[in-house]
Amino acid sequence: MKTKDRIVAAALQLFNEQGEANVTTNHIAAHLGISPGNLYYHFRNKNDIIHRIFQQYAEHLRKSFTPVTGPASASPAVWFHYLDAIFYVMWEFRFFYANLNDILHRDPELHKKYLAVQRELAVNLQALLRELNAQQVLAIPDQEIDPLTQTLKMVVSFWVSYQSAQSLDPRISQAVLYEGVARVLLLLKPYFHPEKGAELAKLSEHYQALARTPSDPFHK
Amino acid sequence: MKTKDRIVAAALQLFNEQGEANVTTNHIAAHLGISPGNLYYHFRNKNDIIHRIFQQYAEHLRKSFTPVTGPASASPAVWFHYLDAIFYVMWEFRFFYANLNDILHRDPELHKKYLAVQRELAVNLQALLRELNAQQVLAIPDQEIDPLTQTLKMVVSFWVSYQSAQSLDPRISQAVLYEGVARVLLLLKPYFHPEKGAELAKLSEHYQALARTPSDPFHK
Repeated sequence: MKTKDRIVAAALQLFNEQGEANVTTNHIAAHLGISPGNLYYHFRNKNDIIHRIFQQYAEHLRKSFTPVTGPASASPAVWFHYLDAIFYVMWEFRFFYANLNDILHRDPELHKKYLAVQRELAVNLQALLRELNAQQVLAIPDQEIDPLTQTLKMVVSFWVSYQSAQSLDPRISQAVLYEGVARVLLLLKPYFHPEKGAELAKLSEHYQALARTPSDPFHK
Repeated sequence: MKTKDRIVAAALQLFNEQGEANVTTNHIAAHLGISPGNLYYHFRNKNDIIHRIFQQYAEHLRKSFTPVTGPASASPAVWFHYLDAIFYVMWEFRFFYANLNDILHRDPELHKKYLAVQRELAVNLQALLRELNAQQVLAIPDQEIDPLTQTLKMVVSFWVSYQSAQSLDPRISQAVLYEGVARVLLLLKPYFHPEKGAELAKLSEHYQALARTPSDPFHK
């Protein structure tokens, strides 16, 4: 791996494990056993590294939530794909979700990039729900697609913060994030066609079982 | 009003208008035209004032969400009462919701009080949903009452943060908070008994109209 990529990977790991506010460029350099000068050869400052991590985040969202169309979209395998992608983004970038408004409001450039990604994500999620409506998996009234999309985005974006507020320990385990995935499914449950009940129950059980599996916080 | 109460009221106003992090005890004293020494006669520090504000918040939650029981609970007037109370708490204590995890994680005593209040609130909200089930207003499957309660708490607790992340302007208007109330209603909509549709539509229209009314951020 190139030094530049190693810096980004190490920063992401340390941010997630220790909280972004507690990690400096010096910590990142020390963790990699390189000099701060070497780090500064690749990145101007910590925000510059965060922009690079954000790019990975945006690429992941774009790739994972471009809706599958046609009859294939009605396959539970595809739903697992979307729900696993939600878990991945919550876990892999949990430092970002733990501190979203701080990180955004101190960096207007990053905030603008975030808003652009959010708009694109909203369009993709709406298309996805419409496709699931068309394939008679869901039956969401037309005027509820937009607000439901927003509620889903909100639950995913603030699940980490909510769980952190609900506990004296600010660390987040994988189990807690799987609960978030199960919660997303529960939000959609009232809109599933009755004949999809069995498949929905299987999905639910899968993520609820993962949510019950003890896992060390901060270890994959 | 006693000086002690005036300090609390001024602190709440300034926190809401300028963000809690930007307001010091000196600002609060200056705003009231009293000396910092006079303020320190009543409160040890800013956190001490926040504890006093938190007490008001907790009392409001307790009073507003103790469920009405019996047939009266099926009256739309009672639902307006609950939904207005949600708006009030989101608006009146918006500084707290704008910065929830920061405020809680720097003060473990406050965090413990918060968790106690949250537990009591969860019990009240669950009783409320069960009562609405019993009165055949809602039809929520038993095993969904607990997670739905949590989702409702989460949407209310992080609506301000979500809206703040969705805009370059961190200020929050009343209209945006009424959207949050409308969103709470939309979460419950799939569980309303079909014959309650007309009453639900009236409730929805009321809060959606308020959400469309332009209002100055930070002014009541």
